[in-house]
Amino acid sequence: MIGRLNHVAIAVPDLAAATALYRDRLGARVSEPAPQPEHGVTTVFVELPNTKIELLEPLGADSPLARFLERNPDGGIHHLCYEVDDIAAASKQLEAAGTRILGSGQPRPGAHGKPVLFLHPKDFLGTLIELEQA
Amino acid sequence: MIGRLNHVAIAVPDLAAATALYRDRLGARVSEPAPQPEHGVTTVFVELPNTKIELLEPLGADSPLARFLERNPDGGIHHLCYEVDDIAAASKQLEAAGTRILGSGQPRPGAHGKPVLFLHPKDFLGTLIELEQA
Repeated sequence: MIGRLNHVAIAVPDLAAATALYRDRLGARVSEPAPQPEHGVTTVFVELPNTKIELLEPLGADSPLARFLERNPDGGIHHLCYEVDDIAAASKQLEAAGTRILGSGQPRPGAHGKPVLFLHPKDFLGTLIELEQA
Repeated sequence: MIGRLNHVAIAVPDLAAATALYRDRLGARVSEPAPQPEHGVTTVFVELPNTKIELLEPLGADSPLARFLERNPDGGIHHLCYEVDDIAAASKQLEAAGTRILGSGQPRPGAHGKPVLFLHPKDFLGTLIELEQA
């Protein structure tokens, strides 16, 4: 079912400082920051040869990252995103196997405009998993 | 400096259950378990088209994962491993920039037999980073 690792998302308290760290200290190629008010985050992508690191800073009062950063004030790895060929079929198959899907359970447009859904961390080794339509 | 994401490591309390979850629930290709007594872990690799997920279970009384799993009993993402072309040069450059390297500060053979070192999570957005000689 799962294909490529699309990205690893790291929540950070200060996006400019985090971007500088990856660009200057680790010598990586980084994107411009992109505010995504509908998701409550601003994103910067670190482009690696085989995948991406998504740096996420809270945006607005109701950011889904606020609680995570309260518990992890230095930042931390927030989720892994795997690509799937058919997200509707994946969702159906996972639910039938007893996996809890967060929110409505229906795929919705994610930060890249493609349909995504999130699996409950308690069902996946303490890791929040995003599935994205490839 | 950094190249490919070599792997994402996930610490798990029960390697057989974690392997079954990735193989049966997510339909991924998984390796046989490999005990690595010198590192205090048993590893299973989940092979994705562009990178690997390394599932890690504690092995022996002094496993470096014991405390992590006490704090994260369901498991959790333990570290990210980036490849570098020249680990000695990377180490020197990072130390000169004020990055703390864990342990002796010298690269030592990692789980794949190649030289590795670990960077202090406090210096990297709350994430433990392994650098591995490509």
